[in-house]
Amino acid sequence: MSSSFFPTPRTLMGPGPSDVSPRVLGALSRPTIGHLDPQFIALMDDVKGLLQYAFQTENALTIPISAPGSAGMESAFVNLLSPGDTVIVCQNGVFGGRMRENVERCGATAVMVEDAWGAPVDPEKVREAFRKNPQASVLAFVYAETSTGARSDAGTLCAIAKEFGALSIVDAVTALAGIDLQVDAWGADVVYSGTQKCLSCVPGISPITFSPAAVERIQNRPGKVQSWFLDMQLVMGYWGGDSKRAYHHTAPVNAMYALHESLLIVKEEGLEQSFARHHRNHTALVAGLEALGLSMAVAADYRLPQLNAVNIPDGIDDGAIRGALLNDHNLEIGAGLGALAGKTWRIGLMGHASNPGNIKRCLTALGSALRRSGYACDTEAALTAAEIALGE
Amino acid sequence: MSSSFFPTPRTLMGPGPSDVSPRVLGALSRPTIGHLDPQFIALMDDVKGLLQYAFQTENALTIPISAPGSAGMESAFVNLLSPGDTVIVCQNGVFGGRMRENVERCGATAVMVEDAWGAPVDPEKVREAFRKNPQASVLAFVYAETSTGARSDAGTLCAIAKEFGALSIVDAVTALAGIDLQVDAWGADVVYSGTQKCLSCVPGISPITFSPAAVERIQNRPGKVQSWFLDMQLVMGYWGGDSKRAYHHTAPVNAMYALHESLLIVKEEGLEQSFARHHRNHTALVAGLEALGLSMAVAADYRLPQLNAVNIPDGIDDGAIRGALLNDHNLEIGAGLGALAGKTWRIGLMGHASNPGNIKRCLTALGSALRRSGYACDTEAALTAAEIALGE
Repeated sequence: MSSSFFPTPRTLMGPGPSDVSPRVLGALSRPTIGHLDPQFIALMDDVKGLLQYAFQTENALTIPISAPGSAGMESAFVNLLSPGDTVIVCQNGVFGGRMRENVERCGATAVMVEDAWGAPVDPEKVREAFRKNPQASVLAFVYAETSTGARSDAGTLCAIAKEFGALSIVDAVTALAGIDLQVDAWGADVVYSGTQKCLSCVPGISPITFSPAAVERIQNRPGKVQSWFLDMQLVMGYWGGDSKRAYHHTAPVNAMYALHESLLIVKEEGLEQSFARHHRNHTALVAGLEALGLSMAVAADYRLPQLNAVNIPDGIDDGAIRGALLNDHNLEIGAGLGALAGKTWRIGLMGHASNPGNIKRCLTALGSALRRSGYACDTEAALTAAEIALGE
Repeated sequence: MSSSFFPTPRTLMGPGPSDVSPRVLGALSRPTIGHLDPQFIALMDDVKGLLQYAFQTENALTIPISAPGSAGMESAFVNLLSPGDTVIVCQNGVFGGRMRENVERCGATAVMVEDAWGAPVDPEKVREAFRKNPQASVLAFVYAETSTGARSDAGTLCAIAKEFGALSIVDAVTALAGIDLQVDAWGADVVYSGTQKCLSCVPGISPITFSPAAVERIQNRPGKVQSWFLDMQLVMGYWGGDSKRAYHHTAPVNAMYALHESLLIVKEEGLEQSFARHHRNHTALVAGLEALGLSMAVAADYRLPQLNAVNIPDGIDDGAIRGALLNDHNLEIGAGLGALAGKTWRIGLMGHASNPGNIKRCLTALGSALRRSGYACDTEAALTAAEIALGE
């Protein structure tokens, strides 16, 4: 290559990144200013306020981590844990396994609570794990499992943690702005997300919020946080409420412009309206997929509206269909991950990308690719089913 | 605020971020595609090749870390070190101190070699430290100290590390593309940088390169890397040479477009030409500053051309002058950091921002602000001195 890169635009209906709004791309490319410029400090304050709105929290320590969602996850664990701690980790997909990796790399012990991939976390198993491990000081779980498309009952799980005197760490990477996420009402202690899902912002930043109880635990740690870059005691000096900001690292200035604009768009629409739109479009997509003869991988009660896991029909080649969608239709959908590789597709309807046009584009492209692979299906019927569900 | 953010453009002549070229901002805002899209994989390969050019290396593991320079620093230490290791850390400014923090958070011991802030690292002291600590397995130093503007003899220091059987970790955050950086010829083992200095790219990404000996040490570690996000054994699976890329984290897609474009610009100009331009503009700036009656904080032999530390004259208020430059001239210069706070200004001439127009803008603005503060100086004489040095 070694010449300027002009990507062929795609419609992004995978597990993220999702389509980024032109408003966000416009903000991203505004002139870079200094990370200690008073203009930028004012922007940082506004980003914090908008993140509090999106997280439905009044937590003072609500900030964007200057790195992707997996750094947000690591930030939660390295700040809260010390060697010897015990953490109850729920696993019902890929990201619970990543949590375990994080716990163990902190020198702590992970007590695993396993549920089937595609099922939600079972609160009774979590209660049982706390009874057997009363020393556990943290409960960690994934609210919206990006690898399976299943939603767990985050409010109930946070309440169980409280019942046993533990703090909760909630992975909300795919949840934020797509489904209800009541950080304060649920009493969640550390909740992190990513920019490239329902915020429809460029990937690379991880919004995170810490409850006062989480901040207190960080301030009373027995030793230093093992990561300098993610040490909240240091990051707070830069992002904290003081008028005097201490230099910690150079913030990704332009990515903050983009995050700010994406949060403004969320606030302009309103969270409730955004959740309702995600739900409505999900219902229509499912109606269309079922009219194509496909089945959903997750039971109706636990489906994420923003990430729809579909079973790949017998005899259909996973890669061939995704390749056809990408090459013939410039449409990206997601492969299955981990235990579900080759068994499911993951169709995202996230943020800006959750709209009727994308539903129809996806049903049309998928119907066409499936028929070419010898799978009998009726695209017109699928489009009609989706339109009826949309009330069109 | 809570409305779209339109920053007043600044001329960025601080320690970074530096002015970003419109070409780079243009690349940044191209449509987001998936991080596993074949188009993006091809871009990743091209970025690796261009980084090898900029670092003057054939190291296969030459990649951008998806987070700022301080994560690049952490990545070097957490991958190379294990608990109980001994590291010789040279400190002649802020960033040597940060290296010590990183070493200690890995459970390793830092043997400090101290030099005055503004002086280069003394190779004899490093030799002496190795003689007293033969168990030391790593030497870490800052090639271009961003906090002081001093340049150390990186080639000699890397050779000393080799002489004592140790690996070298070199901070080249401010060096890359601004001054000669011969990773292979010097035998440097881990060298990291940032995008927001002489690459004139947006902040947020840290290019890094690992020698085969460094990779071997990582592959033979006694235990896991304490950071999941920065674990090179995992990152290699995504950025490695295989045709099949394993998902690790979601790469900051648009930031990669920008990095790619900034590296293309470096290659189009050519490294030698870029170094010569940085040197020529530095000489002109110094001539102008001295004609204003100001003195440089670093001895001529060790000055970084891309970051010029100037002594603040007695009786002149640091903040008032920088405030006047920012508010009246939209010009950002840097404050002193750490031990040099209030004593020096740091004037960057980095990458795209290293040009005659910026030199004149800075001399004019600084002359004006100083005169208003009661300091007698002659801007015309300063501009003439700079023009003569530029050969204009």
